[in-house]
Amino acid sequence: MTHPHDLPRQDHGLIGKRIPLIDAKRKATGQAVYTDDIHLPGQLVGKILRSPHAHARIKSIDTSAAEAMPGVHAVVVGSEAPNKFGVLPVSQDETALAVDRVLYVGDQVAAVAADDEWIALEALDAIQVEYELLRPFLDMEDSLEDVPDELRLHEKTVGNTNIHKQVRQDFGRVDDAFDNARWSAKKKFKFIGVNHAFTEPHATIAWYDADGRLTVWTAQQVPHYLHRALATVMEMPMHKIRVVRPTVGGGFGGKSDPFPHEMVAALLSKKCGRPVRILFDREEVFYLNHGRHPSKIEVGLAIDDDNKISALDIDALIDGGAWGSFGVVTTYYNGVLANGPYRVPNFRYQGRRVYTNKPPCGAMRGHGAVNTRFAYEVLIDEATRDLGLDPVQFRIDNALPSFTKTVNEFRITTNGIVECLERARDAAGWSEKFGKLPFGRGIGVAGGFYISGSALPIHWDGIPQSTVHLKIDFDGGITIHSLAAEIGQGSDTMLAQIVADVLGVPIDYCRVKSEDTDTAPIDLGSYSSRVTFMAGNAARKAAQKMRRHVLEGAGALSGYPAELFVLTGEECVHVAMPDVRVPWIDALRRAMKDRGALTTSGCYTSAPPMGGKHKGAAAGLSPTYSFQAYVAEVEVDLATGKPHVTEVWAAHDCGRALNPLAVEAQIEGCVHMGLGQVLAEDFAYNDGNVLNPNLLDYRTLSPTETPEIHPILVETFDPEGPFGAKECGEGPLLPILPAVANAIYDAVGLRFYELPITADRVYRGLEKARKQRERRSKLADEVKK
Amino acid sequence: MTHPHDLPRQDHGLIGKRIPLIDAKRKATGQAVYTDDIHLPGQLVGKILRSPHAHARIKSIDTSAAEAMPGVHAVVVGSEAPNKFGVLPVSQDETALAVDRVLYVGDQVAAVAADDEWIALEALDAIQVEYELLRPFLDMEDSLEDVPDELRLHEKTVGNTNIHKQVRQDFGRVDDAFDNARWSAKKKFKFIGVNHAFTEPHATIAWYDADGRLTVWTAQQVPHYLHRALATVMEMPMHKIRVVRPTVGGGFGGKSDPFPHEMVAALLSKKCGRPVRILFDREEVFYLNHGRHPSKIEVGLAIDDDNKISALDIDALIDGGAWGSFGVVTTYYNGVLANGPYRVPNFRYQGRRVYTNKPPCGAMRGHGAVNTRFAYEVLIDEATRDLGLDPVQFRIDNALPSFTKTVNEFRITTNGIVECLERARDAAGWSEKFGKLPFGRGIGVAGGFYISGSALPIHWDGIPQSTVHLKIDFDGGITIHSLAAEIGQGSDTMLAQIVADVLGVPIDYCRVKSEDTDTAPIDLGSYSSRVTFMAGNAARKAAQKMRRHVLEGAGALSGYPAELFVLTGEECVHVAMPDVRVPWIDALRRAMKDRGALTTSGCYTSAPPMGGKHKGAAAGLSPTYSFQAYVAEVEVDLATGKPHVTEVWAAHDCGRALNPLAVEAQIEGCVHMGLGQVLAEDFAYNDGNVLNPNLLDYRTLSPTETPEIHPILVETFDPEGPFGAKECGEGPLLPILPAVANAIYDAVGLRFYELPITADRVYRGLEKARKQRERRSKLADEVKK
Repeated sequence: MTHPHDLPRQDHGLIGKRIPLIDAKRKATGQAVYTDDIHLPGQLVGKILRSPHAHARIKSIDTSAAEAMPGVHAVVVGSEAPNKFGVLPVSQDETALAVDRVLYVGDQVAAVAADDEWIALEALDAIQVEYELLRPFLDMEDSLEDVPDELRLHEKTVGNTNIHKQVRQDFGRVDDAFDNARWSAKKKFKFIGVNHAFTEPHATIAWYDADGRLTVWTAQQVPHYLHRALATVMEMPMHKIRVVRPTVGGGFGGKSDPFPHEMVAALLSKKCGRPVRILFDREEVFYLNHGRHPSKIEVGLAIDDDNKISALDIDALIDGGAWGSFGVVTTYYNGVLANGPYRVPNFRYQGRRVYTNKPPCGAMRGHGAVNTRFAYEVLIDEATRDLGLDPVQFRIDNALPSFTKTVNEFRITTNGIVECLERARDAAGWSEKFGKLPFGRGIGVAGGFYISGSALPIHWDGIPQSTVHLKIDFDGGITIHSLAAEIGQGSDTMLAQIVADVLGVPIDYCRVKSEDTDTAPIDLGSYSSRVTFMAGNAARKAAQKMRRHVLEGAGALSGYPAELFVLTGEECVHVAMPDVRVPWIDALRRAMKDRGALTTSGCYTSAPPMGGKHKGAAAGLSPTYSFQAYVAEVEVDLATGKPHVTEVWAAHDCGRALNPLAVEAQIEGCVHMGLGQVLAEDFAYNDGNVLNPNLLDYRTLSPTETPEIHPILVETFDPEGPFGAKECGEGPLLPILPAVANAIYDAVGLRFYELPITADRVYRGLEKARKQRERRSKLADEVKK
Repeated sequence: MTHPHDLPRQDHGLIGKRIPLIDAKRKATGQAVYTDDIHLPGQLVGKILRSPHAHARIKSIDTSAAEAMPGVHAVVVGSEAPNKFGVLPVSQDETALAVDRVLYVGDQVAAVAADDEWIALEALDAIQVEYELLRPFLDMEDSLEDVPDELRLHEKTVGNTNIHKQVRQDFGRVDDAFDNARWSAKKKFKFIGVNHAFTEPHATIAWYDADGRLTVWTAQQVPHYLHRALATVMEMPMHKIRVVRPTVGGGFGGKSDPFPHEMVAALLSKKCGRPVRILFDREEVFYLNHGRHPSKIEVGLAIDDDNKISALDIDALIDGGAWGSFGVVTTYYNGVLANGPYRVPNFRYQGRRVYTNKPPCGAMRGHGAVNTRFAYEVLIDEATRDLGLDPVQFRIDNALPSFTKTVNEFRITTNGIVECLERARDAAGWSEKFGKLPFGRGIGVAGGFYISGSALPIHWDGIPQSTVHLKIDFDGGITIHSLAAEIGQGSDTMLAQIVADVLGVPIDYCRVKSEDTDTAPIDLGSYSSRVTFMAGNAARKAAQKMRRHVLEGAGALSGYPAELFVLTGEECVHVAMPDVRVPWIDALRRAMKDRGALTTSGCYTSAPPMGGKHKGAAAGLSPTYSFQAYVAEVEVDLATGKPHVTEVWAAHDCGRALNPLAVEAQIEGCVHMGLGQVLAEDFAYNDGNVLNPNLLDYRTLSPTETPEIHPILVETFDPEGPFGAKECGEGPLLPILPAVANAIYDAVGLRFYELPITADRVYRGLEKARKQRERRSKLADEVKK
């Protein structure tokens, strides 16, 4: 029997309400405290000396002149902290500073802490480093070769190559499907790297204090992983380390690794006993990077006589840069996240991530799925055009059903893909536009799906993936402790909203404390779109326990069994005798008297992967998935080639939309960010040097280039999600890229297999097409003659 | 059956160990953050305009010129926040600023917030206040008179007088005892006021932020009471208010009220939206005062034919100054805390606390008990001299037994008074010295007893008096949440020590978070010597619950019942099969997996007063009492009269000494502070003006004037105390004053009924005695002639 406390009637109207983010006022008024706003007594400036070479051996470092400079308080080099760390247990390949080799232009070589920035920079100049140049690996293909040990970039690689991770999967009979296909094709796509370009550069303050405790304030998405890595590098127990996350000015995956500069700040502070701040300039942000991987992806698609997708065959070569980071996950996601939102009965994937002598790549919004999704959806567009099928209807006909399994054993639960496709189509006026717009204008469609957190947690110790603690005060004030990091996405608001709703109080009764490892329970942090699903579930459970405590107070005060009360508004009401009512504050105080103090914990752990025959198939397994379908309309300036996206209809199945305002904001942010990659952003290198490490030359789209976006919320009420919710922070990025490319094809008949689709590329394509048309026309004329 | 987890064998050796305070290094290195070390962005300076008159009506205030000054951001006057507050629910007589009358020289009239101190001071000068002078009440006796309503200092007084509180108690047959006494006497004593003279002046920063939340950082002993009072004055719900206690530089009772300057900072910040800091100078500290009450106390003592105390009759007139503060408690304590450490079968008390137009008095170390204790112990000294009895033996013979009740129904549990007397006597070499030292040198003894927290909490809402929350991390790090305020007495260390001992981990696994109302559960704070007993008990219970969780993990891992495990060192060991062992960290992680997250709460509420026939008799009731006996040796400079205390043997029954180092430090601090009152400190007035509001003219003793102190720890293992502990922060102050006075009598034969016993008073006494001797000798000569 359902416990009456969990009856749906106890929904207090906060769920599904458009709630402004609870930290919005603070941010809008400049009162939010970012890491760089913190000024501790005696705080020093830390600066990092970086490698000018892509690949070199460090023969010697002489720091004596820097150490002797007045105003310099500490100098540190790599040999002082050689313990390796990394975000994944299988990729522990980083050190705080280069120990014997530098691996890319910008790699960290030494660091100083000084009274001010000018002294610090002078001290860096005074450090003498002697290098022996080594052959740099700048092209992915070079890293596939067997090389002598001294040229392998890391200890653990595949064989004698510089391949970091290789994944091979083969489900069903792919070759047979291609042999029997009505339509099939294999196409090669090329993707350049993308940087997150968040507003706040990386910033860290470390203080190793008189008690031998280390506190690190830092712009982080995952304080817990940093906590672990600091313990390794600093050789300190975790309980002597405290990580604090001040307000973060954007992360997008780019602040989810434990970073070497965070280690360096700690090392410098330990040496001089004073707080040390390291604030990156934008150039350093590009050196640290950890953005989307450049890749070359070949996708093969087979379609059978029933116009059903019969096979997908993907081969991805992925450029990891100098370090492992989340790269093992990236390598899986490049393949396994192509197994939806359409049914794929036969599936083959090879993924190879290689180390190169370039800034490291890592997780970025839509992690691992974006580039393959682009290729796949463009290929579907080609197929439907060749086959004379409507691309929306083809996708509907091929959609995965709800509550099913994919060929690689993902457990699909709720699935709104068909509704997404239908609603985006109808809202866009697809039938009046597709194939009917004048040359230069076009419309395109694409789908997508994404995880709501990973069922395979990183650093698995058998502890829950998310835990939330609550404390309630005798006036009803509620403190919510969580380490789910608020990085602008609204997780604090989500937690407050869920807890306030369950307890039937206004949201401002809640105070979210999500910044401090000392006080908050472990949460695996903000990545993989896990927060609403996992931390939200934990918060809901903690609040439900708290509600039972309150209702026990009502029982004790009224003389009726607590089980027969429900919370409605701010009263506890007897389910059968609605006249029997106890004000919730009285019930609360009575419960505090009986129980001493009211604190509760809730936690969430997702069901483990099924034991399958395919090792590694479960990477990418999530407790549930979001689905999305976008229609984009573009206008191409035929004189310059510049594509302009005019309107986007963005349908997203986020389960239940807890806060439609926040979901729409995520959709809008995703569209804007995805448009940057498809139309503008270009992480350019020359001999291992980043050519455009600044936000003038690395061009993101300006707000004025954002089209009109029509978010369409498709609600599916996931059975496991908190109040039915699923993710909405990353999936909405996936379809925008191929939808735009497909619309450009509809507009001007050009296919692009390389991003970004800039004006000059379109212009050249248009010119080429014009010349072909002229040649054909001339030829026809000649034939006529 | 005792649960095996609670067996004494699980004491891990931290209890009774000499442990340096866990915040000592921070303080010694200057890293501790006091309120004034905090600098928030945009922080303004708040300054308060004070009354130049002892009693006057405010006819008008014109702040327009101040408001118009560049750099002034807010000006506030009393009518803007007229809600009354006070620390006791029965004494809500204060306002943030004077509303229509000023009640003493230094009373708060208006306040400004400005860019810097100089602008703020200029702005204060620009405020025009028109006063109509009223008759000031400066002598206690004047306040006993009936006066017209307009001269009553507060709404609630006794009848038409300015008496704030009157207490009358009468137990047994006092008059009969005096009639039948072998020896009896009544003497009048006079005590001047005493200021706490802590190092850190009052400091507060308030920030009413963009979210409409108010945060107040402030030097406080009781954040919770301030939290309540702010809600009243600011008309805000408590859950929108956060009180944070940074490091406090001494309190001694003087930071335990909610203060008007804290309200003013909040009001100013609300007006301008920026953080406002108010830092007192020393003169302002003396205006706020809240120190020990001046008083006139008549004590009558009757001794029967068996040399047993047969009656005690006390009449105390107490000068409260302008406000109520803790004065109701003070009025009780002046009488009821004389009912030990000796058996008093017949007891009568009249106490009257009056309002006067002087800085308010409040709680100070040894609250309410110090002055009466002085009078009582001096009178015993007189009696034993008259009766030819040894003053130590007399006290032993009259000692209260353990586990008894006093005539006013205090429940005495463990009682080490006899051992205290014996050990101090023996250590001092009493029998070789008493009555045998040369003129100018003397030895004296006195006893005392004190509460370990009050069984009658202030602001009783049925919630526990102390609650402690624990959170444990998966590497064993423990966060202890408490609002028991660390004010230098070592409460953070005590909490960490208890928790670490119960859980069998080193003390540095613990992090104490005792500063923040947002995160810590309610605790009634640091006053009445309640912290070790009450918060310590709460911490112990929370840790015991946590231990059970850990042992459940051991049970789950080993396959044996959890109830059969005990924690020893860092292992869980089967009680019957010692080879069955589980490392505690493994057990912990297993428990986290099973329970989600490990948090526990412990709380303490003392047994309520017994319903007795005497209303109010329970004021002063404590769950247990400390006992103490001191012997002091003095040397009087016969040329100048200056008394110098050379050595003190200070025996104190603190129950079990959890941390002997900390107990000894409390004893030493008490001795030093008590010597200040008995020998030097003099809070002097002239027409309501404090004559010496600075630490040059208000003379506390310097460290070089501190005698050699021999702390003697008498351990009694209180059954209810945490690990047997009782209080040690206030009781040790009581006996030093009379022990010194009695030693001075032993040295030079002079009795003093007024404090301080300064060199000039002794000198005059010696001169008078010399003249008397000369006159007598001359008379004798004449008679001889």
